[in-house]
Amino acid sequence: MNIDMIRAAATRIKGHANMTPMLSSPFIDDIAGRRVFVKCEALQKTGSFKFRGGWSAVSALDGAGGVIAFSSGNHAQGVAMAARAHNLPAVIIMPADAPKMKIENTRALGAEVVLYDRATESREDIGAALSAERGLHLIKPYDDPFVIAGQGTTGLEIAKQAADLGIAQADVLVCCGGGGLTSGIAMALEADAPGLRARPVEPVDFDDVTRSLAAGEIKANAAPMGSICDAIVTVQPGDLTFPIMHRLCGPGIAVPDEDCLRAMALAWSRLKVVLEPGGAIALAAALCHADQIQGDAVIAVASGGNVDQPMFERALTEYGS
Amino acid sequence: MNIDMIRAAATRIKGHANMTPMLSSPFIDDIAGRRVFVKCEALQKTGSFKFRGGWSAVSALDGAGGVIAFSSGNHAQGVAMAARAHNLPAVIIMPADAPKMKIENTRALGAEVVLYDRATESREDIGAALSAERGLHLIKPYDDPFVIAGQGTTGLEIAKQAADLGIAQADVLVCCGGGGLTSGIAMALEADAPGLRARPVEPVDFDDVTRSLAAGEIKANAAPMGSICDAIVTVQPGDLTFPIMHRLCGPGIAVPDEDCLRAMALAWSRLKVVLEPGGAIALAAALCHADQIQGDAVIAVASGGNVDQPMFERALTEYGS
Repeated sequence: MNIDMIRAAATRIKGHANMTPMLSSPFIDDIAGRRVFVKCEALQKTGSFKFRGGWSAVSALDGAGGVIAFSSGNHAQGVAMAARAHNLPAVIIMPADAPKMKIENTRALGAEVVLYDRATESREDIGAALSAERGLHLIKPYDDPFVIAGQGTTGLEIAKQAADLGIAQADVLVCCGGGGLTSGIAMALEADAPGLRARPVEPVDFDDVTRSLAAGEIKANAAPMGSICDAIVTVQPGDLTFPIMHRLCGPGIAVPDEDCLRAMALAWSRLKVVLEPGGAIALAAALCHADQIQGDAVIAVASGGNVDQPMFERALTEYGS
Repeated sequence: MNIDMIRAAATRIKGHANMTPMLSSPFIDDIAGRRVFVKCEALQKTGSFKFRGGWSAVSALDGAGGVIAFSSGNHAQGVAMAARAHNLPAVIIMPADAPKMKIENTRALGAEVVLYDRATESREDIGAALSAERGLHLIKPYDDPFVIAGQGTTGLEIAKQAADLGIAQADVLVCCGGGGLTSGIAMALEADAPGLRARPVEPVDFDDVTRSLAAGEIKANAAPMGSICDAIVTVQPGDLTFPIMHRLCGPGIAVPDEDCLRAMALAWSRLKVVLEPGGAIALAAALCHADQIQGDAVIAVASGGNVDQPMFERALTEYGS
């Protein structure tokens, strides 16, 4: 896993993924007490950065008869869209209680969706059987070098956009689940913008990466679920992603769910972008936890916008104007 | 008024305005029956393309003691933010019944807001008195060469982005009020992408530009207001903008309000961007009036996202998932 893999992924992605914008608002700067720049991956294809990793992994395949992935949402759509573009069949194993819209989107992107019951079935067993039977290549959501390389292309863009903005020193806050995006961005910044430092942001009580970084070893969360930030709740950091984050990242920040809803409402009113709770958590840290951040400018990655309507309406109702 | 003025405006704007992305979604393509690319000016500074014209006009001033503008919303914010950045005082004359958020935003951007009663006062009289008294330069919302040049920078970007996408022939649908954006884009496309053709899109019953283009002379609307597309309801095309549009534009398209609400809901779910009704009207034409459009690809300009929360919630409630 090295920077050359990220640059190679950038070459494969060019013309397929969006170069997402870095957005800002003087109103957000006022609240945060410093300049805030939002790298907006909600505007990526399929509504999240996961398209980058999906495309990177699928486009690096050689001779597979198709792909298979486990996901309840964003990784599912990223892999499905990338596979369709490569004329490869995709099987996505999703929990039967995943958001209906995410299941429908994944099907509409041409994937075969296999639903399982989280209480009684093992997705690993289902996946292993299907993979062996049909010669499908498994694309893990974060602990895969090609996936990390794809997510890292976000970091190459941040390095270039920060240079254009004249920002040489800043924290780069990254919404963090298993650490694929955070570790990829950290490696890209190390190479192209060494004054920028990646920092993971996680939900309170699901701050496994934050605690693992502090302890110097992998720590798990106590509970498997329980935050509205569904997209970034994972049990523990990845075996591939943790050493990279440990070497390169600044300390993590844990953010309560309410701050994510507030950030969603502000992104709606001030940036005109739709964020899901987990996709808003880095912006929430910039807005509500400014005392944990250094410097007169901060970059927050907004990683996704695949939110159900009731949750979005809740954010506007509770924190809108 | 020529292409050199647009290129000069682009030079002055560089590093201040956002290069806004061209977004797409396979779900929107399916509905429209062709590839749809959305040039997303809702992601521009101040939430609409008006920042371009405001910056262009303010940055071209020489020796004015300040600026003054009439506006109920987007032009107000664009001029205010540009003036503040140039350390110039700005006076914005706004109707007392303008949306509260737009008045507050304009004030927060440092402008002095002078409210008037639309029923009993003349904004022109108030403006003339203030302008003479304080030496303020009037920046009209569309019938000003520097404003048209600023809006035209959107067209330079479209030309480049379309070329990157391999689109040489397409209609470019533009949300149209007085015609500043439409005429500016049309001139930029004539120079840099002659296979792309600008076409104005307006609300039903407020299709003054569409009827003027068909008649070959300026026609006015019967009513001064009555569409939810507040930002693009004007009485008639501008004296500067109409000849440009008449020379360069394809036929206009008139779209009912309900289609704009539907486009707002789809932009929310599929593109993750927030649009106001008038800012969604070109996308609405691509989605709901496909029979009036030619070619296998179409570009729709999404011009702004400054929408009040109740109107946005109405769009989601009536046309969301």
